[in-house]
Amino acid sequence: MNPTPRFITLEGGEGVGKSTQLKALQAALAQRGVDCVVTREPGGSEGAEAIRALLLSGDEARWSAESEALLFATARADHVEKTIRPALSQRKWVLSDRFLDSSLAYQGGAGGLGIERVRDLYRFACGDFLPDRTLVLILDEGAERARARDTDGADRIGGRSAEYHHKVETAFRIIAAEEPERVRLIDASGTPEQVTQRLLDGLKDLLS
Amino acid sequence: MNPTPRFITLEGGEGVGKSTQLKALQAALAQRGVDCVVTREPGGSEGAEAIRALLLSGDEARWSAESEALLFATARADHVEKTIRPALSQRKWVLSDRFLDSSLAYQGGAGGLGIERVRDLYRFACGDFLPDRTLVLILDEGAERARARDTDGADRIGGRSAEYHHKVETAFRIIAAEEPERVRLIDASGTPEQVTQRLLDGLKDLLS
Repeated sequence: MNPTPRFITLEGGEGVGKSTQLKALQAALAQRGVDCVVTREPGGSEGAEAIRALLLSGDEARWSAESEALLFATARADHVEKTIRPALSQRKWVLSDRFLDSSLAYQGGAGGLGIERVRDLYRFACGDFLPDRTLVLILDEGAERARARDTDGADRIGGRSAEYHHKVETAFRIIAAEEPERVRLIDASGTPEQVTQRLLDGLKDLLS
Repeated sequence: MNPTPRFITLEGGEGVGKSTQLKALQAALAQRGVDCVVTREPGGSEGAEAIRALLLSGDEARWSAESEALLFATARADHVEKTIRPALSQRKWVLSDRFLDSSLAYQGGAGGLGIERVRDLYRFACGDFLPDRTLVLILDEGAERARARDTDGADRIGGRSAEYHHKVETAFRIIAAEEPERVRLIDASGTPEQVTQRLLDGLKDLLS
């Protein structure tokens, strides 16, 4: 039987292998008897997917920094209410591809709104609800620079400059330092299997 | 020539004749040499109109109170940035059918979020930008009750209960008491011509 249901989020900048690791982590958890509801942001519920379409289409100037942060917060409120909380109350684990910490890092840290303003907005949207554990895939600075040159974003946000994405990584480091119990930085270098093992290690206390 | 450009908002609950008065006020101002850009909420810009479609469709439970307030705030940020501020900087007057005070009254006062929480959200979205004058069409309680029985709303918000709409009116009275310089209650009883004259009187100091 599943241990106590938990809400786990996987975070990271562009090109750190997050999509691959999401699938690998889901499979590794299933092998340990933990079946997760897998979801993603922006999106993960009917209303939030409609907002996702607004967020990811149009040109760079379609939304101001404030409007973009508000749309992410709205989508998140809907995602929590309609998908995440119901799954947890049915005693399921939930694994989300991105959540609050992406907004703190992208809109708050890199986008210039400030991490605390984006955190306040989250509190309006979702109250004191938080992930039980947030795993942030991260590369050291040398690897990050090499990866930044290779990354070719396909949407309004992925396509931003290398400097922007460096600010995102820096913000993830700040957030992890602020909330060490919830947020863990996971070294994304090495083989995919090595990274998956590090992710599992980051959940060890929740799996027993 | 137009006097100093001003941002004027027209507010009021269901069935007080707001649409009729918006047109009449626009015409009366034009006669006095003041041509207004007329706009409306939710909407008034390309992004805000897309959000309007999300807000007004679907069933009552589609959005939580928080999500609904966030969507209104996002649409408003876009409306201010893309439509209202550019018009004012071209020295045009702007007349908006609903704005911030509808959110304070509907989501804040009647919807149970609280006026101050919705005001905080507005500050995140729009900073310290505010209308130069807000005219709230209002009926006394007897007239309001008679009108409530006759009103048959056509969308997610207009179709709510008479008790909800009574709370909206009460919230408008609170807001006007809190900001007497900006927000003026305008008696909506009598002939349309009488009401339009009262609206003009409420702008007298801005027209000279």
